[in-house]
Amino acid sequence: MDSAAPSLLRAASPADLRRVVAGWHAAAETVAFVPTMGALHDGHLRLVEQARLEARHVVTSIFVNPTQFAAHEDLGTYPRTLERDATLLAEAGCDLLYAPTASTMYPAGFATRIAMDGPALGLETDHRPHFFAGVAIVVAKLLNQAQADVALFGEKDYQQLRVITRLVADLDIPTRIVGVPTERDGQGLALSSRNAYLSEGELDIARRLNGRLAAAAARVRAGDPIDAVEQETGAALLVDGFASVDYVAVRDAETLNPLKAAVDRPMRILAAAWLGRTRLIDNMAA
Amino acid sequence: MDSAAPSLLRAASPADLRRVVAGWHAAAETVAFVPTMGALHDGHLRLVEQARLEARHVVTSIFVNPTQFAAHEDLGTYPRTLERDATLLAEAGCDLLYAPTASTMYPAGFATRIAMDGPALGLETDHRPHFFAGVAIVVAKLLNQAQADVALFGEKDYQQLRVITRLVADLDIPTRIVGVPTERDGQGLALSSRNAYLSEGELDIARRLNGRLAAAAARVRAGDPIDAVEQETGAALLVDGFASVDYVAVRDAETLNPLKAAVDRPMRILAAAWLGRTRLIDNMAA
Repeated sequence: MDSAAPSLLRAASPADLRRVVAGWHAAAETVAFVPTMGALHDGHLRLVEQARLEARHVVTSIFVNPTQFAAHEDLGTYPRTLERDATLLAEAGCDLLYAPTASTMYPAGFATRIAMDGPALGLETDHRPHFFAGVAIVVAKLLNQAQADVALFGEKDYQQLRVITRLVADLDIPTRIVGVPTERDGQGLALSSRNAYLSEGELDIARRLNGRLAAAAARVRAGDPIDAVEQETGAALLVDGFASVDYVAVRDAETLNPLKAAVDRPMRILAAAWLGRTRLIDNMAA
Repeated sequence: MDSAAPSLLRAASPADLRRVVAGWHAAAETVAFVPTMGALHDGHLRLVEQARLEARHVVTSIFVNPTQFAAHEDLGTYPRTLERDATLLAEAGCDLLYAPTASTMYPAGFATRIAMDGPALGLETDHRPHFFAGVAIVVAKLLNQAQADVALFGEKDYQQLRVITRLVADLDIPTRIVGVPTERDGQGLALSSRNAYLSEGELDIARRLNGRLAAAAARVRAGDPIDAVEQETGAALLVDGFASVDYVAVRDAETLNPLKAAVDRPMRILAAAWLGRTRLIDNMAA
């Protein structure tokens, strides 16, 4: 067993990032890219692991993107653990950590916004109207900076994955988008950097979300009316102890169009609910 | 002198375009890109000529982009001369003509818009509020499709050139943007595909625009108040025979910010005016 410490290249500017990636491409070596906001957990490391199967080299970015937070949200307190993250990435076999500053990403004079409809309509947008504009601009920038062959995103943020897939197709960004199944703890809770905000009692409640969604998905597949399943699942989450429920929704799995009844193509059930001041999201196939 | 007919490759899909460009890049040969709406005139051919100085290969696109026309504008009647254009491009030394269809560019489900401020504020936007959103989306797509090393745009559409330069920086599109000085006829009229709409009498009037701008630029450089120069130049154009004047404006040449007085860095004077149902624009350094 080789005990040598794995090495991790670092870049803080698009020029440095591109120089390394161009070198790999010049040697006909493929590159996979995993954009993150840091505070890495096993879900992120699963993305890096999958990235190693997709390409010869793996680049991970860590950037807590201010444009996807509203003024009242947790930009200031979002967990930042850069050196710990770097160690985890090196151990996971990531080749390069790209960590630009906010002023590198959004210099004075920045003048461009991206607005999405289609899969960005409803769900998260009803509750975080700024969110996908912020995601779209940062992902467009990061993908164009990295020039990777493939980029991986978790299915945990399922609407985000659909929005990014649409964005990349619409802007003709030459990077293939791959969604990776959600990593869960032993009791099915979707891993999230925001789980760090939860007390033990809140974690017990949070762990009921995935079971409620699995039961709802089974009911939808069995032909129960979608409206009833959505409403009853939301009510059950309140009984479980969630403070409030932003949505429980069954959608076309690709377009995220609302469904009046079950369809003979992939469906997805998505939910967002609050525990104290923490907002959790989860989803699964239906 | 070699009399063999020059050959011109053709592509209609992003995949075909990228295959050719990737082949050139694999051979370490650089690529320059000239996006156009066709109806080519000597101004476009000057762009191709300059492109040949910038890179080993030249790609020209012809696409009359519907998203940059408002409903009442001339999308339906915009001149389309594809086979004549192809002959001109081959003679000018262009290597590849890329002519996608509207449904290739904007397939069903297209869901992305780009909104610009900064250099997009005012001037054209005051009169064509849809215009730069349409330009931004099509240019982002075309540049990402072509993956060229450099792309060339005419200074005739000066505000557009500044908007595209900003867009490409903001989205980190890996293509260098080069502006090319406006090509003019023997009497100084800026070449434009829309000049084809003008009668002989209108052409006589149109040819006075560049002289008025040159005189205005000289006055600004000499220290005359900018407000007065703008107003008096607009009034002179009406006397010359223009039906109406959308704007005559002196701006910072890079940011296009309005100026209260002359500054010690590059300035630009820009104008838009109508002759019958035809709208002409022009600009020059001040």
